[in-house]
Amino acid sequence: MSHTTKEKSKLLARIRRLKGQMEAVERALEAEMPCGDILNLVASVRGAVNGLMGELIEDHIRMHVVDPGTETDSERAKGAADLIDVVRMYLK
Amino acid sequence: MSHTTKEKSKLLARIRRLKGQMEAVERALEAEMPCGDILNLVASVRGAVNGLMGELIEDHIRMHVVDPGTETDSERAKGAADLIDVVRMYLK
Amino acid sequence: MSHTTKEKSKLLARIRRLKGQMEAVERALEAEMPCGDILNLVASVRGAVNGLMGELIEDHIRMHVVDPGTETDSERAKGAADLIDVVRMYLK
Amino acid sequence: MSHTTKEKSKLLARIRRLKGQMEAVERALEAEMPCGDILNLVASVRGAVNGLMGELIEDHIRMHVVDPGTETDSERAKGAADLIDVVRMYLK
Repeated sequence: MSHTTKEKSKLLARIRRLKGQMEAVERALEAEMPCGDILNLVASVRGAVNGLMGELIEDHIRMHVVDPGTETDSERAKGAADLIDVVRMYLK
Repeated sequence: MSHTTKEKSKLLARIRRLKGQMEAVERALEAEMPCGDILNLVASVRGAVNGLMGELIEDHIRMHVVDPGTETDSERAKGAADLIDVVRMYLK
Repeated sequence: MSHTTKEKSKLLARIRRLKGQMEAVERALEAEMPCGDILNLVASVRGAVNGLMGELIEDHIRMHVVDPGTETDSERAKGAADLIDVVRMYLK
Repeated sequence: MSHTTKEKSKLLARIRRLKGQMEAVERALEAEMPCGDILNLVASVRGAVNGLMGELIEDHIRMHVVDPGTETDSERAKGAADLIDVVRMYLK
């Protein structure tokens, strides 16, 4: 079973929140709000998408490549743990 | 008038396309599609948000700070043109 | 006078620190240190370059486009202040 | 053997090129070149660091986690291949 299926309800809730943020941008445009406010709303959408992407990649590593917590090959477990550290530094 | 008001219909169309991409992620999750496909869908949302952000910032510079095309102060016009080049390199 | 000339000594010190970080990566490679350590060293170079870039862009806006602190045109001052906020959110 | 040891000479050449780019920024500052030129030089350092980081992560996945080309567990091989695709989209 794919990790996105296993985490389906959690991820669906997150996607719906993101859609809600986009709807907030839509309302702000329709209400002709100041440009600075709209820039900030879109920047927060960007941050949320980056956060989602970081989590998806981390879960993907654990469930479809190597899970450092359960892997018996110690070199692979260390390699996967290092990889997750770098992904966190980058994408969250 | 704020540039986001002036470009309202173009920006609304763009944010609605972004919402459509999010709905595609939602459907893919509900249909329990493979994790790799979902990663790619979210990555393309990220690219689209970055593109929108880059365009918003460039329009903001032109309409609310300095427009290199119409600015009479040549140093400011050059400064704004250099700034727009860097923003394009970064955000699109 | 260009802002990078005005801030020359501060920026030169920063560039030399960055070169020092790169030399640390070089030594780590030569000493055949573990791959995880090298990944982290390069990630910190990346963070430092992003920080430098953010600061260069902010100073560029203030000195060669519009300085919100001294600009008499209130709309331009507001536009530049909003722009600096977004640059900070992005590049630091 | 760590992949950064195995690829030592290639990576050393790359980090030395990066140092050379930083030295070019240093010379440009000392020569008081225009700010736009310096912004572009630093932006290209940023691009080069991102490229190096992407390559380090991809090699790390192949050599210390799962190599899609040699892995016998087909689900892991597919997971690693998907991961490398996303890393490429992000960091190069």
